[in-house]
Amino acid sequence: MKLLDQPQAPNPRRVNIFLAEKGIDVPRDVLNIPKKEHLSDEIKALNPMQRLPILVLDDGTALSESVAICRYFEELQPEPPLMGTTAIDKATIEMWQRHAEFDVLGPIASCFRHLHPAMAELEVPQVPAWGEANRERAMKGLAMLNDRLEQTTYLAGDSFSIADITALCAIDMMKLARIEMPSDFAALKRWYGDVSARPSAKAGLA
Amino acid sequence: MKLLDQPQAPNPRRVNIFLAEKGIDVPRDVLNIPKKEHLSDEIKALNPMQRLPILVLDDGTALSESVAICRYFEELQPEPPLMGTTAIDKATIEMWQRHAEFDVLGPIASCFRHLHPAMAELEVPQVPAWGEANRERAMKGLAMLNDRLEQTTYLAGDSFSIADITALCAIDMMKLARIEMPSDFAALKRWYGDVSARPSAKAGLA
Repeated sequence: MKLLDQPQAPNPRRVNIFLAEKGIDVPRDVLNIPKKEHLSDEIKALNPMQRLPILVLDDGTALSESVAICRYFEELQPEPPLMGTTAIDKATIEMWQRHAEFDVLGPIASCFRHLHPAMAELEVPQVPAWGEANRERAMKGLAMLNDRLEQTTYLAGDSFSIADITALCAIDMMKLARIEMPSDFAALKRWYGDVSARPSAKAGLA
Repeated sequence: MKLLDQPQAPNPRRVNIFLAEKGIDVPRDVLNIPKKEHLSDEIKALNPMQRLPILVLDDGTALSESVAICRYFEELQPEPPLMGTTAIDKATIEMWQRHAEFDVLGPIASCFRHLHPAMAELEVPQVPAWGEANRERAMKGLAMLNDRLEQTTYLAGDSFSIADITALCAIDMMKLARIEMPSDFAALKRWYGDVSARPSAKAGLA
């Protein structure tokens, strides 16, 4: 198999961290997004939405969508579990994964995509008013994570999970999106220090 | 357990269809969204984002996020499988579920939320330019589904799955979002006729 990758971008990075936590090594082809290498016809045949990452299996089957790729590896190699083992664990992790994705990563990415000059050619049309509206959505999402992390070690409870991976990649995108972390989110900062210090946080990066 | 519900809204409807396919009956409390019953402090304590549906377990644990709730029931009662059984099936279904959610339901919901006068008080700020931009995104997503359904019976392959549920709820929201189905999406129309005719499509509705 082969992973079509760009580990600096938040979605491919999620898969890279997930694989590092599992100790799984997969051959990579790293594509250049600013040079629009992901917008080729070859990529379109693998993922009609032309988004990375894409996992190409040995029989040619293409899996896109970062969480779907993670699910595949979770099923192939359950240890260490990053998506839960019992029904309630699996559901709780999926809930926090989705909160991190829809309420934090999505808003932060929308700030970047709709406000940053570097995205003018890739996000058409840029809607600056939508970018601005997402600052407040991002803050609301971050506040939710902070409240949660006042109660728990990791987002889904006592164990590190895919929900933490999504939230870490979101928060590391804030600089690019020109959003500052509020100084009073102490629990979120404690958690961020913990998850950033894991070796997996550097996975795929030079 | 108890499901805090509003089966007309697309996300709660996803859970209602999922439960009907499983043959699982759960007591419901139906909330009135136009009357903002979901914006109470009681709901905020259960889901900080104040979105429905919410599943409240007997011990008081609250699960939010429609797909997380579905995951819980899939684990409790695997038959009939709606989220896959093998690694590749689970990943393929998750991929198409996410395509249906991010590339179809999301854009259609954004048209509705940012353009419809009925949403002026619930979506603050409404950004009409973002609503308009989502018409094209919705069309691109629908075209992807149509292309896929020229090859397969259901979105993830030979079996009905949660991906079909998400896409059905998205397409049924098009009327509200004032988006017309292009007349040349024959495969999508064939599939829509099939999934709409399933008894589960009416689940939760009077």
